[in-house]
Amino acid sequence: MRGAVLYGPRDVRVETLEEPTIQKPTDAIIRLSVSCICGSDLWPYRGAQPVDRPTPMGHEYCGVVEEVGRDVKNVRKGQFVVGSFFASDNSCPNCHHGYQTSCMQRAPVVGAQAPLLRVPLADGTLVATPELPPTSMIPHLLAVSDVLGTGWFAADAANVKPGGTVVVVGDGAVGILGVLAAKRMGAERIIIMSRHETRQRLARELGATDIVTARGDEGAARIKELTKGVGADSVLECVGTQESMWQAIRATRPGGFVSYVGVPHGVSLDGAQLFFTHVHLHGGPAPVRRYLPELIGLVMRGEIEPGKVFDLTLPLDEAAEGYRAMDERRAIKTLLTT
Amino acid sequence: MRGAVLYGPRDVRVETLEEPTIQKPTDAIIRLSVSCICGSDLWPYRGAQPVDRPTPMGHEYCGVVEEVGRDVKNVRKGQFVVGSFFASDNSCPNCHHGYQTSCMQRAPVVGAQAPLLRVPLADGTLVATPELPPTSMIPHLLAVSDVLGTGWFAADAANVKPGGTVVVVGDGAVGILGVLAAKRMGAERIIIMSRHETRQRLARELGATDIVTARGDEGAARIKELTKGVGADSVLECVGTQESMWQAIRATRPGGFVSYVGVPHGVSLDGAQLFFTHVHLHGGPAPVRRYLPELIGLVMRGEIEPGKVFDLTLPLDEAAEGYRAMDERRAIKTLLTT
Repeated sequence: MRGAVLYGPRDVRVETLEEPTIQKPTDAIIRLSVSCICGSDLWPYRGAQPVDRPTPMGHEYCGVVEEVGRDVKNVRKGQFVVGSFFASDNSCPNCHHGYQTSCMQRAPVVGAQAPLLRVPLADGTLVATPELPPTSMIPHLLAVSDVLGTGWFAADAANVKPGGTVVVVGDGAVGILGVLAAKRMGAERIIIMSRHETRQRLARELGATDIVTARGDEGAARIKELTKGVGADSVLECVGTQESMWQAIRATRPGGFVSYVGVPHGVSLDGAQLFFTHVHLHGGPAPVRRYLPELIGLVMRGEIEPGKVFDLTLPLDEAAEGYRAMDERRAIKTLLTT
Repeated sequence: MRGAVLYGPRDVRVETLEEPTIQKPTDAIIRLSVSCICGSDLWPYRGAQPVDRPTPMGHEYCGVVEEVGRDVKNVRKGQFVVGSFFASDNSCPNCHHGYQTSCMQRAPVVGAQAPLLRVPLADGTLVATPELPPTSMIPHLLAVSDVLGTGWFAADAANVKPGGTVVVVGDGAVGILGVLAAKRMGAERIIIMSRHETRQRLARELGATDIVTARGDEGAARIKELTKGVGADSVLECVGTQESMWQAIRATRPGGFVSYVGVPHGVSLDGAQLFFTHVHLHGGPAPVRRYLPELIGLVMRGEIEPGKVFDLTLPLDEAAEGYRAMDERRAIKTLLTT
């Protein structure tokens, strides 16, 4: 099969790879008709996370079960399933608390930019749709697997409540779907911090009520102005840099909630400064598995269309151009057809 | 009147000071029969927070209203009142959200190690007891003013729930009253990290079920062992150093809650490390005002005796010895009679 492999900074190649096979009795193999590129793939792509050997890319996936190991009971061949980027047993204490990305058995899922994928711990990790979805729905289900699940966790971890004022820092696909999540959770005012017209437009379509173009301390000051000097109830930090983190914290009211859902790069928080902001802080790798049943239901009933973040579709063989387009911010998120 | 003044590291003097007077129509003057020394007073006492001029000390107080400014409506002369270390209007948005220590008008209360004290924003800051308390109850009400209120906030901010497992990092008076708070909130297991026998004994009396003497990473590992490898639901960080903060974070289960209630000194949190712990983090100057009505009620009905943390009583004129005893950990907390 063909699959995307990262060799080093800005060096993505699509090459012939061995097809994955069942390695443990708890594995499943699924067939992916589409795949995609994640904002988090850009960190190693840009060299901000070194790769020490050629690395198969892709961790967002949904598709039809092709084969299951002998211990797999919850999913079967022929079902359409959605999973997330860490496999989890969904039965350990951390999973029970809703933190499947800290599952005591967690295992990364890698190599989803390819037509076939091995998923460990299939029973805990995969959720089947009630019926086979129409083709038009598949990009929306693919978005559920990571980018929507992460935006949803961002809104949940920032305690978004009906009537609340929400700020989203970052206009990547996660931030934009954080807007969608906040809207579904009943936020009254949703301010996105963005300087990019295409992204502003999509954010507005999905529920943003205000756009702020200022950044850093100036951006935080603008949020304070918009909230009568108080700050926002909930702030979703969807970038992961020192500037964006403090922008988020400073935009939050005392007692308000800041979530952060991208791996922080070069972020350091001064304890005394944080103390006097009085914010709640919560984040980490989004436990997308917690939300899969609910989000699959919303998509299958046509209530949300998170696949709108895919604004570029390319054949898998052109994955390198898909990475370039996202790196240069020409595309919000690239869909790859296998 | 006589009052305690800090001149520099380890130099506390009790000297004759001018009696405070009403300066603004929202002020009150209250007469204190007892006062006390706070763990946080030890930071400037030890030189960890420089003082640039002689500074009147003390910010924990309760007593009888002696005089009120012309705009004060909620309290009157002769009432017994309890307040907290920041004056607040109790009506701004931050106060409404329960964060009175981030009140938009907040003002510090200083000079409570003396028989008379000026309290700004008296209407918002002071809460009167339903009747005059007996003398024996006054130390308990004095504890409500800061040390219990702070321990209570620590337990609340760490989301202590019935049946939960709680860890308290720090065996100062705040940590010990964090144990009391966690017990009242229904925690099933309360582990205090302490190496000091007197403090361990009091913590056990107030509800601690386990004692851990190990510290730092070793201490956190011991907590993991005691919780089947998972970590605690709620961890109260009541010290404020880099070691204690990470000890608290590492002792918490993924998705669990860490509170921190002492001003952090030299604490820096690496964003990526924090991200993968999956903890909730919340803290800041305890909004004691939020809890005053409830805590005063518990004391007045004899349901709690937080004044048990006072294990040394001295006349105000011997305040210097009170500081020394706390600095050398000979006393948990010093009560000063005026």
